[in-house]
Amino acid sequence: MLSAPATPYQGSPAHDVTAEQDLFRGSLTRTIDGFLAEQRDVLAAISEESLPLISSIATLTGGGKRMRALLCYWGWRAAGGSAGASAPVTAGTALEFFQAAALIHDDIIDRSDTRRGRPSVHRQFTASHTDAGWHLDPERFGVSAAILAGDLCLAFSEELFTSSCSSEAGGAARIIFNRMRTEVMAGQYLDLLEEAVGPDQTPEVAEERALNILRFKSAKYSMERPLMLGGALAGADEALLSAYSAFALPLGEAFQLRDDVLGVFGDPDVTGKPAGDDLREGKRTFLIARALGSSGSDARARINGMLGDTSLDAASVHTLRELIIASGALAHTEQLIASKSEQAFSALEELDIDAVPMEALRLLAEAAVTRSA
Amino acid sequence: MLSAPATPYQGSPAHDVTAEQDLFRGSLTRTIDGFLAEQRDVLAAISEESLPLISSIATLTGGGKRMRALLCYWGWRAAGGSAGASAPVTAGTALEFFQAAALIHDDIIDRSDTRRGRPSVHRQFTASHTDAGWHLDPERFGVSAAILAGDLCLAFSEELFTSSCSSEAGGAARIIFNRMRTEVMAGQYLDLLEEAVGPDQTPEVAEERALNILRFKSAKYSMERPLMLGGALAGADEALLSAYSAFALPLGEAFQLRDDVLGVFGDPDVTGKPAGDDLREGKRTFLIARALGSSGSDARARINGMLGDTSLDAASVHTLRELIIASGALAHTEQLIASKSEQAFSALEELDIDAVPMEALRLLAEAAVTRSA
Repeated sequence: MLSAPATPYQGSPAHDVTAEQDLFRGSLTRTIDGFLAEQRDVLAAISEESLPLISSIATLTGGGKRMRALLCYWGWRAAGGSAGASAPVTAGTALEFFQAAALIHDDIIDRSDTRRGRPSVHRQFTASHTDAGWHLDPERFGVSAAILAGDLCLAFSEELFTSSCSSEAGGAARIIFNRMRTEVMAGQYLDLLEEAVGPDQTPEVAEERALNILRFKSAKYSMERPLMLGGALAGADEALLSAYSAFALPLGEAFQLRDDVLGVFGDPDVTGKPAGDDLREGKRTFLIARALGSSGSDARARINGMLGDTSLDAASVHTLRELIIASGALAHTEQLIASKSEQAFSALEELDIDAVPMEALRLLAEAAVTRSA
Repeated sequence: MLSAPATPYQGSPAHDVTAEQDLFRGSLTRTIDGFLAEQRDVLAAISEESLPLISSIATLTGGGKRMRALLCYWGWRAAGGSAGASAPVTAGTALEFFQAAALIHDDIIDRSDTRRGRPSVHRQFTASHTDAGWHLDPERFGVSAAILAGDLCLAFSEELFTSSCSSEAGGAARIIFNRMRTEVMAGQYLDLLEEAVGPDQTPEVAEERALNILRFKSAKYSMERPLMLGGALAGADEALLSAYSAFALPLGEAFQLRDDVLGVFGDPDVTGKPAGDDLREGKRTFLIARALGSSGSDARARINGMLGDTSLDAASVHTLRELIIASGALAHTEQLIASKSEQAFSALEELDIDAVPMEALRLLAEAAVTRSA
């Protein structure tokens, strides 16, 4: 399963990355579809009426950027795993199902009506209820069914992961997978807590907490752990896994800080979300914590007064943006993104890996920190 | 790991069952506590503030009848597994965590304020919010935090299960565990659907559907699968696992039918739930489906009119009970419980297993179908 190139690499890395990623994406899609087809049979044997659980999950596993699966794949390849192996495909599929489960429950928690331009899963179930004219409350049915769909999807993720790590290297990968799940759930809980407790924190504490939340809820989960997982599956040693972490953790932090900036300043035509959506939701991001901490008491009171107001109009969003810029928080956050990115790219250069995975990780990293949606 | 008695059994089965079960329960409690202590450290490293996730889970894993874990243990022993082995303890612990996760999410879905005489997990988080005087909606915080606590508990269940089945027999046990999870989630979805669609079914269809739901949501999950799981871990062959199923599936059905009867006719002093609680919740059990199907149109309209009315008073509960008795549905359900029990006990006698596990399964079966709470 492990292989090292016998001769120096002579090809075109960017070209090979594209070709390999296309093959991997194809295998990933086939594995996702094949697994869902199997599970559809399992559920049909219980009752045909339970099949909407599967179709609701399929609306999420059918799309997305596959970023976590790709990081897992390149983590595998960079650690000497071979290009056509099945282990990173199965583990990548497990990551995609885990992400789908997290999104289903997240959308309930955030009361999000849409996800990737389609109704979120609880809204799909609510709509089925309304359309069929069933009894009792459609919204309650929608949320309840989506809790179960998310649970099932979480179980599927696990079922897939187990089948990817039957080898000796599976033990190390399993520990990373377990840790990743706990981190993201704890991070989500802290995020929830921050909305509830946040307004009472001192600015320094609020910034520190916002950084801790983005580290666990997003940076580790979306970047560091998937890369390490692929590496561990290929038998990477501790030194290589630490080097992966030195690259992917700051990258993940920059990625999430960019997300926070886009949530306030992003162009709705590009992000697909209403302008200033995070402001209406009252998200206590690092950007917001910094703005509150660096504003005078008047400006701070104005920000706190508008933040989390779900009926915020375009003029108020504009005002809030101006207040955040005036506080210096946007410039500071951009600086932080730049320094985290620099840290990530320096660590990437230090990685002693082949040219093709190196190029792949460089491209993934650039896409992560320069995106506008 | 496997052992067969070299000499015929000479002891006192009932005495040995109690002694063995006490030892197993002790190991189970220590494993649960040890695992939670480890996870507490993992979460504390993320943030001390995430620890309420662990304490909320501990309120559920600390109690209960341990019925699934005990069935797993005796399934292991009856298949020749040794008394002091760790595999059935770890697998039993995984079942206890799975059950805790299911209860956390179930209580959100059913809007249950209490569980085993304490506030349910979402009510615990709501109370923390209210007590601390935090911002935003306490109830929404409670439900969101409980969704995450349930997810974490589900992940813990999996983490434990994986560590129980590292052996060769683990593959067969893993398949049973995966199937069990899918069955219970699909069964819960069908149950939800039944509340929404139920009133429009013809009586025959409604009875059939109610039996299918109780089979997947409860009978397989609570009895059949845990017993098979223990057997599979000890390397039981297909024939023995089928024989387990022939005993435990009708037993689980009788168990759930008894539960349905208690939900309507149970003594509040014994069950710990208000009289007629299932009637106020509008549960579409087999008992109710039968009552509707066997009543005249007047009585049927009266039952449908009162069912699911959350403000039902004691007099109305009494009236509904009388209508159910008059329809013959109670007598019919009691007959069904008796015939399912008989089927289970006949299958138990057919089992070619040692005297101690035989006695243990007999005692568990009796407790399951004759209980009053």
